[in-house]
Amino acid sequence: MEEQKLILVTNDDGYQAKGFNSLIEAVRPLGKVFAVAPFDAQSGMSHAITVKHPLRTIKIKEEENLSIFAVHGTPVDCVKLAINVLLPRRPDIIVSGINHGSYSSTSILYSGTMGAALEGSVNMIPSIGFSHLNFDHEANFEVPIKYSHLITEKVIQNGLPKNICLNVNFPDVTLDKISGIRVCRQTMGYWREEFDKRMDPVGKEYYWLTGFYYNHEPDAQDTDEWALKNNYISIVPVHTDFTSYETIKIINKWGF
Amino acid sequence: MEEQKLILVTNDDGYQAKGFNSLIEAVRPLGKVFAVAPFDAQSGMSHAITVKHPLRTIKIKEEENLSIFAVHGTPVDCVKLAINVLLPRRPDIIVSGINHGSYSSTSILYSGTMGAALEGSVNMIPSIGFSHLNFDHEANFEVPIKYSHLITEKVIQNGLPKNICLNVNFPDVTLDKISGIRVCRQTMGYWREEFDKRMDPVGKEYYWLTGFYYNHEPDAQDTDEWALKNNYISIVPVHTDFTSYETIKIINKWGF
Repeated sequence: MEEQKLILVTNDDGYQAKGFNSLIEAVRPLGKVFAVAPFDAQSGMSHAITVKHPLRTIKIKEEENLSIFAVHGTPVDCVKLAINVLLPRRPDIIVSGINHGSYSSTSILYSGTMGAALEGSVNMIPSIGFSHLNFDHEANFEVPIKYSHLITEKVIQNGLPKNICLNVNFPDVTLDKISGIRVCRQTMGYWREEFDKRMDPVGKEYYWLTGFYYNHEPDAQDTDEWALKNNYISIVPVHTDFTSYETIKIINKWGF
Repeated sequence: MEEQKLILVTNDDGYQAKGFNSLIEAVRPLGKVFAVAPFDAQSGMSHAITVKHPLRTIKIKEEENLSIFAVHGTPVDCVKLAINVLLPRRPDIIVSGINHGSYSSTSILYSGTMGAALEGSVNMIPSIGFSHLNFDHEANFEVPIKYSHLITEKVIQNGLPKNICLNVNFPDVTLDKISGIRVCRQTMGYWREEFDKRMDPVGKEYYWLTGFYYNHEPDAQDTDEWALKNNYISIVPVHTDFTSYETIKIINKWGF
């Protein structure tokens, strides 16, 4: 009999998040699950690691084919600790999420959910980050659960090329409204910040980071933003070699 | 007369770091400098942003053509606040560093220094991250100062393609030992973690993140790791489109 798949589940919203528990539910039929997530919300932590203080882990649950741990650290800390300390062997796949809120386009840069997936693929473990466009704590995860199961199953069957992970986003619509799945490229866009400047009770200024997303190419049908706007589930394959090869040629002409 | 260049300087080691003040010294002859750095060390913060609490800024210094601010936040927070609030206009260039310690190869993923540079290039401002392979607080910055000046000057003269920034690392050798500058690709490698498990005074376990770098391709002469080992200054051009285009074709055959 084939050995059971070992699946590592993590996220950036913390182990109590509905999206995390939805992802456990989605992938549990596919193998033995180790779920290792931050103790509390770590949104916007990107690929951050904890170097200034030590990490602690708490065992939350242990039952047949499911162990849950919480880590006082970032999503990437969770993956590193899971692979190197907590799991009985290297996982066959890492799934991260399901994030409450979108990580499409360049938002991937800020994403702890995708930070964990990238860490998996640097370690040559097939990895997927899942995000739901609804950021409500009590969002409906029916669509994300169905399709994160399906996509994880496909990755287990087919594998992924070396050092590649997937960035999957779910539009916020009901099952009957889903147009399908589209494999896309990352939209080029950015966050236009507008800092909300306030005064504290002793008269000192402080700023809240706020802003809105600006899409440089709203009509490009091969992008994740376009897919999501048209009720498709978007899959962007992401690599960890950030080199711009075209630019190497350009700079070589500068005559250093 | 041409308007003076506006240069934003930031880093991840905090505004008091020797590397930060070395970079200010290096680029000051090239224009008007606004330096906006974290209040304290933010190593390993990658592209993290602060969303759970507000940001505060402190003016550290203001003199002819040089203003220094400290921000209670991450390197990316510094860039966002600088561009949107603190600077009189959009900067012409962003330089980040000089980091105390290497950010070559896949270490770029964890790098706050490069997080700031990537944030600049997402905002379509030419940006450079500089790192020194010597991580000592009192490291000698003679080589980094000379060459960060030169490279910044070249980028001001030539510009950079849209959404491209540079990851520059300096070998830890004296000026006479420098072999030259090499434009490279990012080495494929990863950090092999070995968590240092300890017991606190009340008998509870905790872990320190530690490890060593493993190079998948030590003999590849077009990589940054090879260049640095051979006393070259490495420049890796980095883009913010993380899509793996080859993998789009592969997944499209999975038959979703």
